[in-house]
Amino acid sequence: MAISLDDLPLRDDLRGRSPYGAPEAKVPVALNVNENTHPIPEDVAHDIVESVARAVLQVNRYPDREFTELRESLAGYLDHGLTAANLWAANGSNEVIQQILQAFGGPGRTILGFQPTYSMHTIIASGTGTTWLDGTRDEGFRISPETVRREIERTDPDIVILCGPNNPTGTPLPIETIEAAYDAARGIVLVDEAYAEFMPSHVPTALTLLEGRPRLLVSRTMSKAFAFAGARVGYLAADPGVVDALRLVRLPYHLSSLTQAAAVAALRHAPEMLAMVDDIKAQRDRIVTTLTELGYEPYETWSNFVLFGGVDDPHGVFEKLLERGIIVRDLSIPGHLRVSAGTEAETTAFLDAMRDIRLGA
Amino acid sequence: MAISLDDLPLRDDLRGRSPYGAPEAKVPVALNVNENTHPIPEDVAHDIVESVARAVLQVNRYPDREFTELRESLAGYLDHGLTAANLWAANGSNEVIQQILQAFGGPGRTILGFQPTYSMHTIIASGTGTTWLDGTRDEGFRISPETVRREIERTDPDIVILCGPNNPTGTPLPIETIEAAYDAARGIVLVDEAYAEFMPSHVPTALTLLEGRPRLLVSRTMSKAFAFAGARVGYLAADPGVVDALRLVRLPYHLSSLTQAAAVAALRHAPEMLAMVDDIKAQRDRIVTTLTELGYEPYETWSNFVLFGGVDDPHGVFEKLLERGIIVRDLSIPGHLRVSAGTEAETTAFLDAMRDIRLGA
Repeated sequence: MAISLDDLPLRDDLRGRSPYGAPEAKVPVALNVNENTHPIPEDVAHDIVESVARAVLQVNRYPDREFTELRESLAGYLDHGLTAANLWAANGSNEVIQQILQAFGGPGRTILGFQPTYSMHTIIASGTGTTWLDGTRDEGFRISPETVRREIERTDPDIVILCGPNNPTGTPLPIETIEAAYDAARGIVLVDEAYAEFMPSHVPTALTLLEGRPRLLVSRTMSKAFAFAGARVGYLAADPGVVDALRLVRLPYHLSSLTQAAAVAALRHAPEMLAMVDDIKAQRDRIVTTLTELGYEPYETWSNFVLFGGVDDPHGVFEKLLERGIIVRDLSIPGHLRVSAGTEAETTAFLDAMRDIRLGA
Repeated sequence: MAISLDDLPLRDDLRGRSPYGAPEAKVPVALNVNENTHPIPEDVAHDIVESVARAVLQVNRYPDREFTELRESLAGYLDHGLTAANLWAANGSNEVIQQILQAFGGPGRTILGFQPTYSMHTIIASGTGTTWLDGTRDEGFRISPETVRREIERTDPDIVILCGPNNPTGTPLPIETIEAAYDAARGIVLVDEAYAEFMPSHVPTALTLLEGRPRLLVSRTMSKAFAFAGARVGYLAADPGVVDALRLVRLPYHLSSLTQAAAVAALRHAPEMLAMVDDIKAQRDRIVTTLTELGYEPYETWSNFVLFGGVDDPHGVFEKLLERGIIVRDLSIPGHLRVSAGTEAETTAFLDAMRDIRLGA
């Protein structure tokens, strides 16, 4: 048995679509999906496994539907005066964003975003029936306070979604832009801060604006800074009323007891986990410097990856890197490629390959 | 900070709603949410922890988006000629059902179900914007082939959802009813078989009907028979084309690498895990017999729980059981309560308490 999709009663708006498909290539140097390429430290791994082992002993029971210990741990990690009442989590920030759109978006409602941005934003808008409105960025993928105000006034959206630092460009999102968006918008302002830990340490994040702004939502992830992409833990900081709203749309027991145990254990080791972040930032800065020397045009980046232009034949370079066991991301932005900052050795492999390719070697 | 839900731009259809809220009472004998009260055997727990430990070593990487090994394991467990191409999984059968409604239901589409049934069915319909149509059951909560045919012809739904054995009533769903539903329906027929392993062993499940019926979908869970409620693993068997459709709506990487590792390990021990099922069925039958002797009116059940009528004051009995450290489920069906079959000791505690309450002790 095997029927074609066209012969099934699929929703009309899904017909002809392809599933999300970042290549899952098994190559020695995978720098294509902005993972943290550092395995978690051995002592942290031991603590996680011990915590999960305890959870397995009670896995016959439903998990804590309120994942209270995890929310307390996340609040402790974020600080900024937040408590468990301000925190929410789900299986990856994708699910957090989906729940936000289920609660505040959906059919008859609109969301304003600024492309190019994280590709899941438009997919989740579509999946929840929320109408996507395209905002226009400034030069170099930036969004100034004036621009965000103008685009919000032009489109009057129910939700504004900003990605800071932006994926796939790495572009900083000024705190003044977030303030301007909040003041101009009548509805929810969601800032996707998946890469916040890779920002310069002195720069304030959207978390500093939460107090007194109940329509401001800040989503984060443990995938990047905490090297936890496989564990699927995204989270949100917001007013407790917003958290109440998400309780109305979340599937009960959406976070497994193993996920809760693993995340709580990793958060106990936050300083050690975050020590890798400085290494990654150093490799990222090295990529920017070296690619510039090689004549490419990397963008300013506050994330763990670098978008660079000046690539005559992105597909050709992608293929040449792949021949050398290195995978980067071709986002179909003409003349551009994106690379994640890896370990020092991975970054060296990538930069050496780029030098060879530039020299036609 | 803390704003009221009413002051947030919540969707209109969510206003005034309360979140799903089965009580999470910490009592010695919890028989309220149809969990498998048997912890998983120690050797299985060890194997699960070892598998998860290996996954933790690579948790910095995204999980296998296709969870191929898990799908192969599930196909092997279900047998019936199924392969990985027929299998899908998600974080609990709730998420499986949500994905099905996202693909085949949604705004402008309808789903026919038969209440009383699993309470999440209507909640997921609402959450995906699918219009719920209420079918009428026969006496004793049954659904005959004639009844299902009549209700489908009356309502012409895009999706039919049947729960067999039915939750919260335990009612058997005849295979002939499923066949009749498929023949009468123009769209998807989803059979929620969360409790299938508790059916009499000689009775065919909906899996036997899959061949040649591409619109038939059978959802299952590891929560009950596999004592895996905490791990959140629901799954689906269907035509490979249906699986392709779900790829269009699932959030990428929705199943964590820890979940995949834990489930694959548990499935390696299927015979041992399922040995508990026979114990539970024996306790369930004991509940039916004893409650009947006490003058209550239990329904025929093919699941791991018993719905019983003849309770003059369900709320009062619920409270009296709770005083004794036993929690059951008050589903607000007048004159009825529901109890999950526990271990022999838990079941004895429940039945002794019911005898005391009946005698006014």
